Amino acid sequence: MDPLSHAITKSGAGAYVVYASSHDADMRYLTRFTTSDPFVYFKKPGEKNGTIIISQMEVGRASRESTAAVMTRAEAGLPEILKREKDPLRAIAKMIAGQAGKKILVPPQFPLGLARALGRYCTVSVDSGTVLSMRARKTRAEITAMRRVQKVTETALGLGVSLIRKSVAKKGVLNRKGTPLTAEQVKFVMHSHLLACGCTAVDTIVSCGEDTAIPHMTGTGPLRADEPIIIDLFPVEEKSGYYADMTRTVVKGEPTDEIREMYETLREAQQLAISRVRPKATGSALYQAVVDFFAERGYESNTRGFVHSLGHGVGLQVHEPPNLGPGGLALAAGNVITIEPGLYYPGTGGVRLEDMGAVTAHGFDDFTAYPAELVL
Amino acid sequence: MDPLSHAITKSGAGAYVVYASSHDADMRYLTRFTTSDPFVYFKKPGEKNGTIIISQMEVGRASRESTAAVMTRAEAGLPEILKREKDPLRAIAKMIAGQAGKKILVPPQFPLGLARALGRYCTVSVDSGTVLSMRARKTRAEITAMRRVQKVTETALGLGVSLIRKSVAKKGVLNRKGTPLTAEQVKFVMHSHLLACGCTAVDTIVSCGEDTAIPHMTGTGPLRADEPIIIDLFPVEEKSGYYADMTRTVVKGEPTDEIREMYETLREAQQLAISRVRPKATGSALYQAVVDFFAERGYESNTRGFVHSLGHGVGLQVHEPPNLGPGGLALAAGNVITIEPGLYYPGTGGVRLEDMGAVTAHGFDDFTAYPAELVL
Repeated sequence: MDPLSHAITKSGAGAYVVYASSHDADMRYLTRFTTSDPFVYFKKPGEKNGTIIISQMEVGRASRESTAAVMTRAEAGLPEILKREKDPLRAIAKMIAGQAGKKILVPPQFPLGLARALGRYCTVSVDSGTVLSMRARKTRAEITAMRRVQKVTETALGLGVSLIRKSVAKKGVLNRKGTPLTAEQVKFVMHSHLLACGCTAVDTIVSCGEDTAIPHMTGTGPLRADEPIIIDLFPVEEKSGYYADMTRTVVKGEPTDEIREMYETLREAQQLAISRVRPKATGSALYQAVVDFFAERGYESNTRGFVHSLGHGVGLQVHEPPNLGPGGLALAAGNVITIEPGLYYPGTGGVRLEDMGAVTAHGFDDFTAYPAELVL
Repeated sequence: MDPLSHAITKSGAGAYVVYASSHDADMRYLTRFTTSDPFVYFKKPGEKNGTIIISQMEVGRASRESTAAVMTRAEAGLPEILKREKDPLRAIAKMIAGQAGKKILVPPQFPLGLARALGRYCTVSVDSGTVLSMRARKTRAEITAMRRVQKVTETALGLGVSLIRKSVAKKGVLNRKGTPLTAEQVKFVMHSHLLACGCTAVDTIVSCGEDTAIPHMTGTGPLRADEPIIIDLFPVEEKSGYYADMTRTVVKGEPTDEIREMYETLREAQQLAISRVRPKATGSALYQAVVDFFAERGYESNTRGFVHSLGHGVGLQVHEPPNLGPGGLALAAGNVITIEPGLYYPGTGGVRLEDMGAVTAHGFDDFTAYPAELVL
């Protein structure tokens, strides 16, 4: 029996129910149907793929795209229900109860308003992460999709780096064709390539100098010579919904000794972490190993230095389990994770390196082939 | 007192609480802070902007970007709580209760798992749409942003139409530079322009011929002469989060008489609906007026003909209240809505026209300047 059927049975429920748009990664995973409007998914124990309830207008597309069986709202009795029940949320609740029965299991992110409306018709139990766990162990098809997105991401990042490499420093500012090269231009050339490959990226980071000391600063304006430039790119492929995630730090010109040392230490830290990835290693142990390594080299891991976690799972969300930080649990073969140590010192700057790859039976299959080269 | 403070007080709660990433449009609206990870927002009655609780790492960016006050998780006591409470959801619940008090009000989409965890510390009441109602009446600044996105969208759509206009029919297939012009190429030229303007679009429709009879078919492959091509584009501007939404139907060559008549009727239907837009007009009455008009001209509104609603609100989501379909409530000045009748007949094809604009004190301020021209 599949893990979700097992969880339904164990909870004593008759069905698992999701109500969300396909922006909800669980919903996309369970149905492979994409729409920006919320819809119902339900599955009874032992059923392979469950059923979605959608509008008549979506039937053709849903039948082609979704792995789930397709039922229209009319087939689920909604028009009849709406004759008596004018409140739309209550009507949807009654429709769900009619299909899914008197005891249902739902994900933790299930909307509270609908859960309360369902309370009139059935008992609602909250599952704690069965689908998240299923999502965390990627199938071969998912890994193929993620490798494809990673490859596109590396080519895009290479185009961005190439702009920086070919730029010329004038009074400390990088110039291209006689005008300052900006973070926006580097993002644009990367995003254009992504677009041509059916991928989109938002919140891309191209930060420079002092801004690199703040990990999530997205960066704007002219880039400068001799200062660290962090490029962090995490696109999603439209057709599959899968993300890739990678970061490189580069300097056009001469980095300071501090940045050079931080970068060398960072590379060693990343290699150390990668060498320890294997099934059953915990995210917290990997994180702690890097914290300890940095401490030996004189770098803190609190409000300065290594200020974030070591990494995270990637899939239909850019951040998903497993977590490689304090509290991170055991890894498993099939997890796709990032290994991304960083060091951040206001006044000096920041450096970060991020690879994405799969946990295998024996270690880490790094999807990231792009070189880790500081000085351009 | 602002509507949200009023709703909190009326419910007897001490604070309004949201837990979501900024993909949740309410969260983005209330905080103007963008992050892909969930965070806490709470507001007490009478406070203007409320407070967000975020990680130390995000403080700098949040202080600059968010309209809300910024508190770190450490300031909210999370590290202390985590010493005793190992379950992350329960720890967040305890942290929220510590800040927001013993009675809280939450939005309907609040996650059920967290609501249950909060049940140990406080009473949780569900609000029914106060923030959605606030979002539905746009401020001047929001309308400025949406006009800007609409303008970019029209230019993009114009570039797509231009490709079709300049194409040459060969054996019924549109050609450009000697090879078939595809839906993908039209999408790419539109998306490239959007990208250069800081906007992104997904699920863009460029459908042709038989596919146009299915409203949500996104379209693929070579475009054909003498057949309807529906272009439906709804980009979002990254920096503001606001959407635009528009649709045009074009034919390169000679449409059939049926398509020509459907299109002429459609234009009249759209003009009729636009002429009736005003505050207090209901979405359902506008929809019904179009259904009746189509019926007079011999077109159905069920599983064929006019198969969807007349329109919807647009803002931080591409579909948001008000709804212009059966059950649609009264419009109000400041609503930004689409007026998008369509007619769909398998075997013949489909036509749709969609303008976006604001409900004003006296009628409809159409943001869409792009011509409605069927034959190219």
